[in-house]
Amino acid sequence: MTLERQLTTDQLEALAVGASFLGTGGGGDPYIGSLMARQALDTHGPVTVIDPEDLPDDALCVMSAVMGAPTVLVEKLPGGNEQGTALRALGQRLGRTITHIISAEVGGLNSVMPIVASAMTGLPLVDCDAMGRAFPEIQMSTPTLHGIKATPMAIADDKGNTVVLDTIDNHWTERLARSVTIDMGAAAFIALFPQTGEQVKRAMIAGTLALAEKIGVAILCARSEKSDPVEAALRASGGHRLFEGKIVDVERRTVEGFARGEVTIDGIGGWPGSRLLIRFQNENLIAIADESVIATVPDLITVIEADTGRPITTEELRYGQRVAVVGVPSDPQWRTDKGLELVGPRYFGYDIDYRPVESLNKERS
Amino acid sequence: MTLERQLTTDQLEALAVGASFLGTGGGGDPYIGSLMARQALDTHGPVTVIDPEDLPDDALCVMSAVMGAPTVLVEKLPGGNEQGTALRALGQRLGRTITHIISAEVGGLNSVMPIVASAMTGLPLVDCDAMGRAFPEIQMSTPTLHGIKATPMAIADDKGNTVVLDTIDNHWTERLARSVTIDMGAAAFIALFPQTGEQVKRAMIAGTLALAEKIGVAILCARSEKSDPVEAALRASGGHRLFEGKIVDVERRTVEGFARGEVTIDGIGGWPGSRLLIRFQNENLIAIADESVIATVPDLITVIEADTGRPITTEELRYGQRVAVVGVPSDPQWRTDKGLELVGPRYFGYDIDYRPVESLNKERS
Repeated sequence: MTLERQLTTDQLEALAVGASFLGTGGGGDPYIGSLMARQALDTHGPVTVIDPEDLPDDALCVMSAVMGAPTVLVEKLPGGNEQGTALRALGQRLGRTITHIISAEVGGLNSVMPIVASAMTGLPLVDCDAMGRAFPEIQMSTPTLHGIKATPMAIADDKGNTVVLDTIDNHWTERLARSVTIDMGAAAFIALFPQTGEQVKRAMIAGTLALAEKIGVAILCARSEKSDPVEAALRASGGHRLFEGKIVDVERRTVEGFARGEVTIDGIGGWPGSRLLIRFQNENLIAIADESVIATVPDLITVIEADTGRPITTEELRYGQRVAVVGVPSDPQWRTDKGLELVGPRYFGYDIDYRPVESLNKERS
Repeated sequence: MTLERQLTTDQLEALAVGASFLGTGGGGDPYIGSLMARQALDTHGPVTVIDPEDLPDDALCVMSAVMGAPTVLVEKLPGGNEQGTALRALGQRLGRTITHIISAEVGGLNSVMPIVASAMTGLPLVDCDAMGRAFPEIQMSTPTLHGIKATPMAIADDKGNTVVLDTIDNHWTERLARSVTIDMGAAAFIALFPQTGEQVKRAMIAGTLALAEKIGVAILCARSEKSDPVEAALRASGGHRLFEGKIVDVERRTVEGFARGEVTIDGIGGWPGSRLLIRFQNENLIAIADESVIATVPDLITVIEADTGRPITTEELRYGQRVAVVGVPSDPQWRTDKGLELVGPRYFGYDIDYRPVESLNKERS
């Protein structure tokens, strides 16, 4: 294994597709992030990527991310040095020099924002993230399971305001940062979860940037080779084909700042006469086929376009789309008791026990 | 003039009464604050008070205050080292040692909280404040008129969370700090408006702690001597007797976190047949006698018990109380164009020009 590799603009399209797949419907459209990343790479040159295992134990790694509504962020984009402002504010608070950038989530917009931060600061990017997918709240990060705090954390907006938090736990971080972000105009740039190299090796999920790229490449290749992109995505992700059909209904409502709703899909192909219901809150949370639960958080539930393999975010779900639904086992850290307490079905309001998607899928077939 | 003097528990009762008078109905009940101050002085000994003119130009002065709903604060009191936590967080952000404590407002609870901070830290208290009364929002401070920023600012709660703000202007400070305070449980401890000695001399209002004590002493003496406490308060404060009567109606509603409402007083004594209406938002904002405006912000409008001279906060207004209404000219800084833009009647939603209370009162008599 090489110690480091370069990330260039050539990889961005595949990364955006793969990150959208792993975003399980949420995390915002990584295409927008990939435009920003392209501009940053064009300006500053390629980014150095290293694996967690190659980190010095005393490295100071910091997550660079955006918080809030991705759609708002798109409207207020330009500027572009807010990520740098957040990193500087956090570095000042820590009184130490940040050495590496890490990713908060591999899904959606936040899979590519750290690339922008790395390009702008010249700091290497570590191939890992704290979710192995997308989740809506800060505390839903594997470091939380290891007692690692999200603070000190810095928040910067596009106007020049910065806020530094020091909280007693990661739920408080989420709560205070959420209010500040809403005040700042519903989206802000954040730097958080400062960790040593040793902590990153122990607490973060390794290799998810490479995984996103691999999934994206598989889908794009299958598309250009006219082979089945769904099959390609399954192979690359280790996922299970849960359903295939046509979207016959989409309901959405905004509750407490979250995009909640459900989508109904009528089966075709191998599932004639069946009906699948997926409930979502930013991300897809639970999939129910003919009244049987077939997948829940923290496992990944991803809806992709049947013909092209394009992952569809919950915002983009439309009546009439022909889709395949894929279930991917979540990282083993999320399947522990502590993990399920943080991101299991009950946390999201479903009074059921978690069962792994691969077990549920085996029973069905 | 002596360079410094000692503040002891003997002065707290008078200070609380005078601060309540200058609080113009808002700022919370200084009695609660005086209990905290008494405990702090009992534990740590007297506080050294100096006049702004005796400050070294390179002193680093910081306001210590509470933000949010005073009634909530009373319920969650104990702890007591949150002020210290906020000051430490700000000192760390500044990378310098804080040398003096200053007051945000002379009215209400925040007139005595800096005494607690001084007692606990051993730092001298400077006899000055940023309002010469009480106002509801952070930017309503005389340093704002001098282009002095409220940030860096630190916020600490009773649980152990701290937040440090760096904003582009004092309106943004108010906005972000307000949200954080609400999240923290509707009340929090703050350290803000770091200023050099030179800035304090130029931008703060000098001598308001001594003024509060003088007013309190006058009211308490008159009460014990069975002379007219209203007259004593007028002489001590330089105020005008605007009205006297009996409260016949009080309306209250909570709008956007503020206690808004109005009180109606039917004239007796020198004002038979007249009716006074006072509108308030935490503080008394405007007094209208028989449809003529007789006083508005930023001038002080204070309702006091006719018999005892006890100042009545807007929370304590009750049907049947016999009261005198006093108008006191505000600090000249508030009467400038810039001052009136920040705290004049139009800012609070009244479409009228400000006219000094002494002019309005002269016309009436």
